Amino acid sequence: MTTPFAFTAEAACGRARAGRLRTPHGEVETPCFMPVGTKATVKGVSPERLAAVGASVVLANTYHLYFRPGAGLVQAHGGLHRFMGWPGPILTDSGGFQVFSLADTRVVDDDGVEFASVYDGSRHVFTPELALRIQEDLGADIVMCFDECAPGTLSLAEIEAAVARTTRWARVCRESQMRRDQLLVGIVQGGVDEKLRRRSAGDLLALDFPAYAIGGLSVGERGAEMLDTVTLLDGLLPEDRFRYFMGIGDPLGILDVIARGVDLFDCVLPTRLARTGSAFTSRGRLNLRNARFAEDLRPLDADCDGLCCRTFTRAYLRHLVNQKEILGMLLLSEHNLRFLIRLCAAARRAIVNDRYGEFAAEAREKYLQTETG
Amino acid sequence: MTTPFAFTAEAACGRARAGRLRTPHGEVETPCFMPVGTKATVKGVSPERLAAVGASVVLANTYHLYFRPGAGLVQAHGGLHRFMGWPGPILTDSGGFQVFSLADTRVVDDDGVEFASVYDGSRHVFTPELALRIQEDLGADIVMCFDECAPGTLSLAEIEAAVARTTRWARVCRESQMRRDQLLVGIVQGGVDEKLRRRSAGDLLALDFPAYAIGGLSVGERGAEMLDTVTLLDGLLPEDRFRYFMGIGDPLGILDVIARGVDLFDCVLPTRLARTGSAFTSRGRLNLRNARFAEDLRPLDADCDGLCCRTFTRAYLRHLVNQKEILGMLLLSEHNLRFLIRLCAAARRAIVNDRYGEFAAEAREKYLQTETG
Repeated sequence: MTTPFAFTAEAACGRARAGRLRTPHGEVETPCFMPVGTKATVKGVSPERLAAVGASVVLANTYHLYFRPGAGLVQAHGGLHRFMGWPGPILTDSGGFQVFSLADTRVVDDDGVEFASVYDGSRHVFTPELALRIQEDLGADIVMCFDECAPGTLSLAEIEAAVARTTRWARVCRESQMRRDQLLVGIVQGGVDEKLRRRSAGDLLALDFPAYAIGGLSVGERGAEMLDTVTLLDGLLPEDRFRYFMGIGDPLGILDVIARGVDLFDCVLPTRLARTGSAFTSRGRLNLRNARFAEDLRPLDADCDGLCCRTFTRAYLRHLVNQKEILGMLLLSEHNLRFLIRLCAAARRAIVNDRYGEFAAEAREKYLQTETG
Repeated sequence: MTTPFAFTAEAACGRARAGRLRTPHGEVETPCFMPVGTKATVKGVSPERLAAVGASVVLANTYHLYFRPGAGLVQAHGGLHRFMGWPGPILTDSGGFQVFSLADTRVVDDDGVEFASVYDGSRHVFTPELALRIQEDLGADIVMCFDECAPGTLSLAEIEAAVARTTRWARVCRESQMRRDQLLVGIVQGGVDEKLRRRSAGDLLALDFPAYAIGGLSVGERGAEMLDTVTLLDGLLPEDRFRYFMGIGDPLGILDVIARGVDLFDCVLPTRLARTGSAFTSRGRLNLRNARFAEDLRPLDADCDGLCCRTFTRAYLRHLVNQKEILGMLLLSEHNLRFLIRLCAAARRAIVNDRYGEFAAEAREKYLQTETG
């Protein structure tokens, strides 16, 4: 059977990979940072500006869209692409993370999860079938298995139970998938325990997913444990499928996971930081509220090619942030996205040129020279 | 002496005029709606998007910029154009309106006004000289005399005193202007009293300003009184200078003042409405919070050529507004500005084609057919 999807690892440098993912709505060059558009909008960034900052794929959230405005309305638009005005590739997560992280009271069994909606407290049940059905209605290009996210800070018994359910639910998703124009991604759990990660990866590999995600990291475990777990999975996951690390937006963390064979990642961090007046720069993170920027006529990041850095001074940005002007948040949101997207593009070039190690070391050193002057 | 400014009334239809204003930063075709960028940003609209919706001149506020971030910082940037990243024409108001409308306790005498800053309550004095000096530092193309805005709802004695001070202060501004690359506009006051309006206009005409503004209207008086006053001034102000009506953003009101020889107007209404989920359309004003839009797959205004109406449905806009997503406010702000700018462009074409009366009647009739279905 032909598929509209294809992933090709075009170049490698050490374990870092430069790849290309074909989807029905366009190609994604990897490594790739994917902006988060939880409620079918990346906060403060229009689809037009999203394209302008170089985004190639956007994430939307099954849990939130199920409740508001409902998957039926999105389907009536012909799917998320038309609904949110983003013609490029879209990925939806399964809602699993929200079911476990947002609900005060939940009842989990082998079939699914009963929980209270954050919108009105009403009781609902998500099963793997339902999570997939909603994603089929939403119509993203890439859809995720319904999983149980078990942080490495839980007990081994709890993580083991979550791994077992994640495998069981992944099988249900695999078997109940109806649409063949959506790429279904299996999610590996297991906290930071080697045995459980090996078991989860083995279970999912047996189900032969076309791509794999690494879940349950960046949720409170120590950094070294996180990286060891990614290294372990890099050795276990097939080379010819793309790997998606769920939830990492720190520039140095991104460099670390790229070095360990990860192709795709997402995080709310760039837009969330922007709403607090903070910005990534090549020389570290700055908070524009700081008085030392009051008369600073320099661009936010002299290395950046984005509209914000080509047009405005730090003093103007600080004025906007301090006066709570919406434009401040817009400009910083776009800038922070542009920063991570440029970082990934530069990483890709370095991989192709077989110098990823040097590139990452230089970028890290520069980033750690955080400006204080 | 040559001047970088020129206003030409290129066509007329009845009393409506199609004109062209040349400034050091570009031309303005009139009639023209001018978006308001109080604190050196039009709320929620980047300079790039402002150009995209067709804005040709932007207003910024002397009072607010004097306090935050201070005129010196703007001057250090080389002026407002560089500071706010808007390369086109800019107008600054004088701060007079804010000194009178924002201050709880103020002391007015013939030399100026002592008042408390809205930012920190500290006491300040604005004189006509200072208001002009600040505007010279800010560096807009068009600057306004410091005036006393006296609504028609005040007593005749109060309005008469305000007219006298406005004349006195206009003379001070005229005589103390240093920069010749700024167009200084005289402001006619006088409430809705014919005698006082005639007096104010006569006083200002004697000072031979290169352009005139109509102040003190749209501040609580009855609509018919407002229009009668504009009609009166249309007969008094010179045909070869442009006329600026301060503070009107209602589409039908705009049609009315264009018919009475007004060339330029401004208002916060389009962006303020957007922040409450309201939108202008050719068939009246809609509030997107309304449940009847929940499944409405039509564009906001089928007659509109803007990005919002070409891309998104009412149902999506309602979702954004209800979820308090920033993009909802951005899209409605841009749309509302585009609506008024398109209205002015259509009015200009109708004037040139000598059919402004029919155009305005059709537009009014359509606007009043407010959708309810």
